[in-house]
Amino acid sequence: MGNRSIYLAGPEVFLPDARDVMREKRRLAREYGFEPTGPGSDEAEAPAGPVFASAIYARNDEAMRRSAFCLANVTPFRGISADAGTVYEIGFMIALGRRVWAYTNDPHDYGERVRASWYGGHVDIFEGGLVRGSDGLMIESHGKADNLMIDAGIERQGGRVLRNTRAAAAVSDPARDLSVFEKCLQEMALQIHE
Amino acid sequence: MGNRSIYLAGPEVFLPDARDVMREKRRLAREYGFEPTGPGSDEAEAPAGPVFASAIYARNDEAMRRSAFCLANVTPFRGISADAGTVYEIGFMIALGRRVWAYTNDPHDYGERVRASWYGGHVDIFEGGLVRGSDGLMIESHGKADNLMIDAGIERQGGRVLRNTRAAAAVSDPARDLSVFEKCLQEMALQIHE
Repeated sequence: MGNRSIYLAGPEVFLPDARDVMREKRRLAREYGFEPTGPGSDEAEAPAGPVFASAIYARNDEAMRRSAFCLANVTPFRGISADAGTVYEIGFMIALGRRVWAYTNDPHDYGERVRASWYGGHVDIFEGGLVRGSDGLMIESHGKADNLMIDAGIERQGGRVLRNTRAAAAVSDPARDLSVFEKCLQEMALQIHE
Repeated sequence: MGNRSIYLAGPEVFLPDARDVMREKRRLAREYGFEPTGPGSDEAEAPAGPVFASAIYARNDEAMRRSAFCLANVTPFRGISADAGTVYEIGFMIALGRRVWAYTNDPHDYGERVRASWYGGHVDIFEGGLVRGSDGLMIESHGKADNLMIDAGIERQGGRVLRNTRAAAAVSDPARDLSVFEKCLQEMALQIHE
């Protein structure tokens, strides 16, 4: 079997019902043969106050180092990209050589989100397909779920980024929907047995 | 002297004048005794189109692995957090054990930005200091420049996150101001000689 420890990265810790959502994610991970580690595996939420930031970090850092896998929720969080802590953890796990997968409950790609949500459609398209926002900033248009470093880093290591594209209909509760999370677990478990 | 290669991470590649700004950053890095590597060390901007995402990634991945240092621009980019690609690179370099520093041209901390810019001040403060936005999501209030994983990861490795706090006055061009970038280079160079 080997080491089946999996680091479940994502912004669920910020939800008012963090404890329940995270418990369900851990339950599903175990159902597919994985052993979930942090963040905050056994607590409802991180403690507040500057004095604890280094302790929270140390706990997550340690959990990542002892995990063989990572499954990250890159559903946009307060903006057009994934939660910054989750993105840090993806880069960290890729550098450690771990197998990382990710999922998002947003059916749109990053370029679509930037063009529509950030610029309200006010963009300029230049020869060669280069797209810039009304402020002149280039807009990445690689068709990826988020910044290409995230998607391409994961794919290069043999992982995948799955998107919730449920008939183009919006997912009713993108912060909590676990259908694509479960699909990742399924495919990861299959990949291990190949 | 040892290996003085430095990975200059940041969203400058998206600027309309990317080539000029990045050239100036490389010039300053050399002035302080470092040898700058990617991203895009010798080009104005990344090529567009899905076919190139993996090539861009591979080039940055390789540049990071051969760099001894990283200096990252975590000035908020299209939202309340640093550019997602930059955050990925910080996590990646920390995991590789490299010394990482970061700077931001935003004088505010992450919690302040989330409360003011994202929630427009509509937040609830609970007993014990826990802060939640109007949607119930917890707001990190650790006084850090960005998500605690970024700041605490950098600090744990002996690096620092410097903020542009120029007399509380707003920096006139936060996407291009290099005064705190230069301050980081100065302090990094001193740290090496200690």
